[in-house]
Amino acid sequence: MSKLWGGRFQEEADARFARYNESFSFDQRLFSVDVRGSLAYAEAIAEAGILDEQELHQIQEGLRALLERGASDAAWLTAGVAAGAEDVHSFVESELFKLIGSVAHKLHTGRSRNDQVATDVRLFVREAIDAIDAQLVSLQRALLDVAEANVDTPMPGYTHLQKAQPVLFGHFLMAYVEMFARDLERFRDARRRTNRLPLGSGALAGNNHAIDRGALAKALGFEEITYNSMDAVSDRDFVIETLAAASLVMIHLSRLSEDLILYTSNEFGFVEMSDKVSTGSSLMPQKKNPDALELIRGKTGRVVGHQMALLTVTKGLPLCYNKDLQEDKEPLFDTVDTVIESLAVMEIVIRGLKVRREKMLAAASRGYLNATEVADYLVRKGMPFRKAHEVVGQIVVLGLQQGKEIGDLPLDVFRSYSPLFEEDIFVAVSLEATLAGKDVHGGTAPHRVKESILRARSRIS
Amino acid sequence: MSKLWGGRFQEEADARFARYNESFSFDQRLFSVDVRGSLAYAEAIAEAGILDEQELHQIQEGLRALLERGASDAAWLTAGVAAGAEDVHSFVESELFKLIGSVAHKLHTGRSRNDQVATDVRLFVREAIDAIDAQLVSLQRALLDVAEANVDTPMPGYTHLQKAQPVLFGHFLMAYVEMFARDLERFRDARRRTNRLPLGSGALAGNNHAIDRGALAKALGFEEITYNSMDAVSDRDFVIETLAAASLVMIHLSRLSEDLILYTSNEFGFVEMSDKVSTGSSLMPQKKNPDALELIRGKTGRVVGHQMALLTVTKGLPLCYNKDLQEDKEPLFDTVDTVIESLAVMEIVIRGLKVRREKMLAAASRGYLNATEVADYLVRKGMPFRKAHEVVGQIVVLGLQQGKEIGDLPLDVFRSYSPLFEEDIFVAVSLEATLAGKDVHGGTAPHRVKESILRARSRIS
Amino acid sequence: MSKLWGGRFQEEADARFARYNESFSFDQRLFSVDVRGSLAYAEAIAEAGILDEQELHQIQEGLRALLERGASDAAWLTAGVAAGAEDVHSFVESELFKLIGSVAHKLHTGRSRNDQVATDVRLFVREAIDAIDAQLVSLQRALLDVAEANVDTPMPGYTHLQKAQPVLFGHFLMAYVEMFARDLERFRDARRRTNRLPLGSGALAGNNHAIDRGALAKALGFEEITYNSMDAVSDRDFVIETLAAASLVMIHLSRLSEDLILYTSNEFGFVEMSDKVSTGSSLMPQKKNPDALELIRGKTGRVVGHQMALLTVTKGLPLCYNKDLQEDKEPLFDTVDTVIESLAVMEIVIRGLKVRREKMLAAASRGYLNATEVADYLVRKGMPFRKAHEVVGQIVVLGLQQGKEIGDLPLDVFRSYSPLFEEDIFVAVSLEATLAGKDVHGGTAPHRVKESILRARSRIS
Amino acid sequence: MSKLWGGRFQEEADARFARYNESFSFDQRLFSVDVRGSLAYAEAIAEAGILDEQELHQIQEGLRALLERGASDAAWLTAGVAAGAEDVHSFVESELFKLIGSVAHKLHTGRSRNDQVATDVRLFVREAIDAIDAQLVSLQRALLDVAEANVDTPMPGYTHLQKAQPVLFGHFLMAYVEMFARDLERFRDARRRTNRLPLGSGALAGNNHAIDRGALAKALGFEEITYNSMDAVSDRDFVIETLAAASLVMIHLSRLSEDLILYTSNEFGFVEMSDKVSTGSSLMPQKKNPDALELIRGKTGRVVGHQMALLTVTKGLPLCYNKDLQEDKEPLFDTVDTVIESLAVMEIVIRGLKVRREKMLAAASRGYLNATEVADYLVRKGMPFRKAHEVVGQIVVLGLQQGKEIGDLPLDVFRSYSPLFEEDIFVAVSLEATLAGKDVHGGTAPHRVKESILRARSRIS
Repeated sequence: MSKLWGGRFQEEADARFARYNESFSFDQRLFSVDVRGSLAYAEAIAEAGILDEQELHQIQEGLRALLERGASDAAWLTAGVAAGAEDVHSFVESELFKLIGSVAHKLHTGRSRNDQVATDVRLFVREAIDAIDAQLVSLQRALLDVAEANVDTPMPGYTHLQKAQPVLFGHFLMAYVEMFARDLERFRDARRRTNRLPLGSGALAGNNHAIDRGALAKALGFEEITYNSMDAVSDRDFVIETLAAASLVMIHLSRLSEDLILYTSNEFGFVEMSDKVSTGSSLMPQKKNPDALELIRGKTGRVVGHQMALLTVTKGLPLCYNKDLQEDKEPLFDTVDTVIESLAVMEIVIRGLKVRREKMLAAASRGYLNATEVADYLVRKGMPFRKAHEVVGQIVVLGLQQGKEIGDLPLDVFRSYSPLFEEDIFVAVSLEATLAGKDVHGGTAPHRVKESILRARSRIS
Repeated sequence: MSKLWGGRFQEEADARFARYNESFSFDQRLFSVDVRGSLAYAEAIAEAGILDEQELHQIQEGLRALLERGASDAAWLTAGVAAGAEDVHSFVESELFKLIGSVAHKLHTGRSRNDQVATDVRLFVREAIDAIDAQLVSLQRALLDVAEANVDTPMPGYTHLQKAQPVLFGHFLMAYVEMFARDLERFRDARRRTNRLPLGSGALAGNNHAIDRGALAKALGFEEITYNSMDAVSDRDFVIETLAAASLVMIHLSRLSEDLILYTSNEFGFVEMSDKVSTGSSLMPQKKNPDALELIRGKTGRVVGHQMALLTVTKGLPLCYNKDLQEDKEPLFDTVDTVIESLAVMEIVIRGLKVRREKMLAAASRGYLNATEVADYLVRKGMPFRKAHEVVGQIVVLGLQQGKEIGDLPLDVFRSYSPLFEEDIFVAVSLEATLAGKDVHGGTAPHRVKESILRARSRIS
Repeated sequence: MSKLWGGRFQEEADARFARYNESFSFDQRLFSVDVRGSLAYAEAIAEAGILDEQELHQIQEGLRALLERGASDAAWLTAGVAAGAEDVHSFVESELFKLIGSVAHKLHTGRSRNDQVATDVRLFVREAIDAIDAQLVSLQRALLDVAEANVDTPMPGYTHLQKAQPVLFGHFLMAYVEMFARDLERFRDARRRTNRLPLGSGALAGNNHAIDRGALAKALGFEEITYNSMDAVSDRDFVIETLAAASLVMIHLSRLSEDLILYTSNEFGFVEMSDKVSTGSSLMPQKKNPDALELIRGKTGRVVGHQMALLTVTKGLPLCYNKDLQEDKEPLFDTVDTVIESLAVMEIVIRGLKVRREKMLAAASRGYLNATEVADYLVRKGMPFRKAHEVVGQIVVLGLQQGKEIGDLPLDVFRSYSPLFEEDIFVAVSLEATLAGKDVHGGTAPHRVKESILRARSRIS
Repeated sequence: MSKLWGGRFQEEADARFARYNESFSFDQRLFSVDVRGSLAYAEAIAEAGILDEQELHQIQEGLRALLERGASDAAWLTAGVAAGAEDVHSFVESELFKLIGSVAHKLHTGRSRNDQVATDVRLFVREAIDAIDAQLVSLQRALLDVAEANVDTPMPGYTHLQKAQPVLFGHFLMAYVEMFARDLERFRDARRRTNRLPLGSGALAGNNHAIDRGALAKALGFEEITYNSMDAVSDRDFVIETLAAASLVMIHLSRLSEDLILYTSNEFGFVEMSDKVSTGSSLMPQKKNPDALELIRGKTGRVVGHQMALLTVTKGLPLCYNKDLQEDKEPLFDTVDTVIESLAVMEIVIRGLKVRREKMLAAASRGYLNATEVADYLVRKGMPFRKAHEVVGQIVVLGLQQGKEIGDLPLDVFRSYSPLFEEDIFVAVSLEATLAGKDVHGGTAPHRVKESILRARSRIS
């Protein structure tokens, strides 16, 4: 397949180098955005007098034909790789030439692959962010539905993986809704910065034919144009920022996975995963493993690694375009796929969870999760908190020695630690009172959790 | 120094573990924000009835005294480390107790170090972002000043570190203004997400004393509150997002450093650095090295590493607070310092640059940087661009063989390649015409560069 | 403090740049190795005729005096920072000059800070590896002791955090002994590559005075010399390789931490940590948290981040020395400290573990951990394994439905699945038989675990 | 395609999860090692009495048939993905069953996919290291050949990208030979640790059928066996260590790329790259870009990112096997391919370099690269080096002001700085003397460079 840059060269590319250098095996994923970019660009250079009306028409017809074929004929693209297409831009120009002849050779006037690929990647990222956005909303809906069904399901809350205070399972799930809501914000911010048109920056210095970049931007749905041509062709910030946002989604998914893996263990037993997202062992017949969650957690490394890769690639590069930047695509594509699939699989997991309410309740009722309530009880009776904290610490030691929960100790034992204790201590340390007491915005009191669910629903509707 | 959690424990901490565990040696940097948070919190629990007016007054007086001492007496904090303070929160409570006695022990009511430190770190990040913001603006001003002084200084623009097309040195500098402008946007987005109050989330489940979190937020200058207590104490997204923004600033600084290191080399010779930001060699008497730029470039690794560190720390952590999160502070502090100092040093470098205009001009005039103009000349005469590209490629080969620049070839040589060439080709390939031709938004045509400078100035004023 | 490179410079360094540039605040940690390197170097240049006997003597006396002072007078080094020492090399030369006058100015002959610092860092790394080596051995000893005490303590082994097959707690601990043994190998390999002398490479081209590098190597305990001067001053492979080995130790420590954090949870309850390495909560009086383990796990991020930092720093640097390499020291120092302290704290944790044998035993007896034994029973009676696996899968489903363990099902139920079952199935599925059956090298059969302990002990003795 | 673990499951896997979970699309790359592992394992269980002679024979015939088909029929494996094969192990068992019927179901007896895949990956890594080893040797040969041809080609040596001292181009190349020699060492160390057999560790507890692991190891070419079954199935150290070694090779390649990219620039002009490994611009007809080198430099990020990915994956994983570990393969495969291809392409670049000897010589003769010689001249006449350094610094300032090189200054000017200067200073500062003076092991004196070439050749022959 002919190169876009042959004239000055007197030797053919070494075959091994050609394979190392080609990008069509992966950048064919940009085929559709590349052609759409060319459709708009043809209009722009026609406006600038490079193409007459008929030439524009020919080129547009040709490009539309390519677009259609690309959508339906995957083998055609695959064959392009075998035929030695260097990249998606060469492939499109060369196929257009096959269709419409030498007028095809006018399309690249004033354009460089540098501003072209920058435009393509921005279009790709913009669409990828929209897809991730939808998936983030959808996962939030699943979490909200399960949270709503569990606004009266107490479970132990943990810090340091030690039982801490009781919370509602719905409250636990809402923690993740908040995380994914922040992810949404971050992706939308990244989208804003992505949605700026670099086309018209040429190779580095600008376009030689006074094209109307504002009109081009509008035609391609960009909100703004870029304002320095050297920056525009060198900039991959929008990719790195998108990968950074992706790393954080994956961190959140990894934490949710970790929690649920713990909760599906025999020892916790709080939830059971659907067979649909579990697998077994080739050796041990009894096994049912939470593979979906482990894979999601594992794929966090993949995405973080991609971000690291691109930071390393761009560090210390001089202006403007350097071929190193070709390395932006594979990590980007893989990250987008990984994030979308991981969110989707997590949604299936969440919707398929069987909640073992009685196990959670039992676990929330044992293990001194109400110790803080005792301290707060003493505070309300006038004891400084730090003193109360110490007193309760000693009561817990006694409980541990006697194998008793706090609520099981008789009043006189309480009173031996402080005369401030009275009969109402037993109400104060009940699970209901403990939960209801967290009555602040964002607290686990049942009506507060309901409030949070409503707020979150309205945020994404 | 007494612990905040002694009651339940029957053995003292191992000394080596205590040193491993303590954070006061570094989190004392949060001293001021920690005390300011406590001042607001005291108000909130007074409002909730935990403190009477006199107690509130005592606590506030005490905290203000600590705040003052902290600002003036660094040795006091250092001594706290030696005395075994576990962290800044313990230190403050313990010093407050020394000042005002047991009423100090009421301050922690309903609060956990979990929501306290989350608040402290958010306050720190907010202020750090403001400082970075100012530095980013200041560096942009320096770049704009030097760009303005160089809107008529042509230089070679590079792609693949090969001469590509002429640009203005002012245009080159404006590429970096655009990058730092995006950095500013990213930090401001991160600030918005940082500026949400977690205080009142307790250890994980919420505050037991119905404090008014909205009023607290207002008192501490937060724009919003967080809406899930479990998330609020576990969330370090705002730190990671700030580190991600910091990584990108450093990537930009590393690229600018690389460019300027190249340009100060004997071979390029485009600029000379001030002695003030250079150093010499202990062995080689002639050396003057661009250390400032190399250090900035090198410190990119440090910041990227910190971001990776924190992603690794948070991956797979179960809810809610885990001690792993103590590892958020050192990378954060070091990143903030590194970014601020790197921006400041770059500003000194930029303001001290001596521009070797004649070297740049000479370099822009040799090396076939006007080859594209020849192709565009042919395009304007009707030749399809791809054909014109090939023709010019052959002319360049001839030039290389004869050791001549394009403009030095006689007309009949041009015409031997295409009859479309006429006398006006010599004007078309002049440096002035080449520059002026890039007349689009963001192009390097002189009036476009001036336009960009104006736009950028108004953006930051 | 005077610079080593003043002659060619006409302006003083900017104060902010000077602070940014100085390294003495951290490279003073190399003080002792730097002086020891100079002691050997003095000998070498005396041998080469640069110093006469008396000058050599003066310099040696002076250096020895500095060495002594450095070991005892920390304030002196701190004062050097305040006085503006640029780096440890400048400080030493300048202090030597104070002691012995201008003969001090002969010491640097033929040497550059480039080969000097490369030598210093190699000496530091060599000693650091030896310290890590000792700590790795010591931790293995602790694990071996606890393993030995638990060669008859059955516990559930997990895959996917689901109960899989019973193992011995001693066997579990031996898994980590194997990991740390590999770490030891890796550090020793790194040491071999570290222990090569770069001194005599000059700034980049070699030493001008024909010094005997072999003799220098011997004097400083290096096993070999480096064989290319440009490489020798640019090479930080040995640092990166050491950081890579450190990352893997931390990964291992993070996994052990994770396991033990799980096992100390209320839900698992297999072990209890000593109060000596746990902390409490400022709010919740009942809490006892495994902080030591969480910190170790968290510090993994720190070390991985340092490795990534240095890879990023060195990527794409041209030869030879660039100031970017100054960034090698802080990550290195912090990594060494972190690894040593983490290993030490883990050893304290391990030696302080209380093993809840009965909890482990109970957990190993429930949850179908013997299902594979049933399949293997059928295999021994002639059924192909894949078929047997399926049959046992169905038996487990029945058990789950009836809430019964395999060993609690009556024989006729077994026989309803296959006529191959006979009375001896009940022996086959016993915990003892299950454990004893894993009778291969590296298996959990008790005598195999004892064998492994012996092998591991002999390996480190 | 049937699963290996169906019995206990009552619902089919969700289709989206199944796609997320499958690994056959990439682990089919292990097909050959997987089957070879099974051939050895069949022998082992026959020895242990699980298979009779005829069954063994059938299985071996079947496996050999699969091996052959796998080597010649790529479409068969591709079809396996479409047919829903979960992984390479399932595919092989299922295809074996098609060939030989139910005796195939005996093969997995006592084996788990956990020890099977650990074995497969070790076999893959061992072979990959051997391939990398060969490529590293081959690249060293190319460098040695070009170095040998350039032992009399002076060029400027750089520090801080400023001219420092003259070196030979052959010496420059030998710096990289040293780096790649260290890489070789590291890969060989990693190979040693890779080449230990995990098979026989079962799912986690060991093999139930007393197979002879030593014999298995021998059959598969392993030097040792692993000694703890839980570790053996959880361990991916050998992958991470291989990736770490790969990161360092790529760092070295990135530095060589950077140097050569600089040297091919118009400004340096020291070397020209072959057209065979360069490409042009779609817009600028004159461009010839060093794409091969930029790509190599860029791909460093990719490999570093993969290492980071796997460290993140393994951080904090509990024992034993977790599905997260499935994420080890893609980064491993891609790293191996990237390293091999990058080394190969670099070799093509090196062998195709056109060296511009006259440009290098001219550059080495200007820019005060002999300033250190002047100082050493004064040292030999008795002046302390630090003093001499300062004197020469002033001479350089004068030279800069007068636009003269050191050797162009008249003797009386020299003597105005110091009476020690005599006529022989002009010989001392000649390029020949400067080079010849670096007469130590590893120095750039021509006979030392020849010596180094010989040493390096003998090391790899």
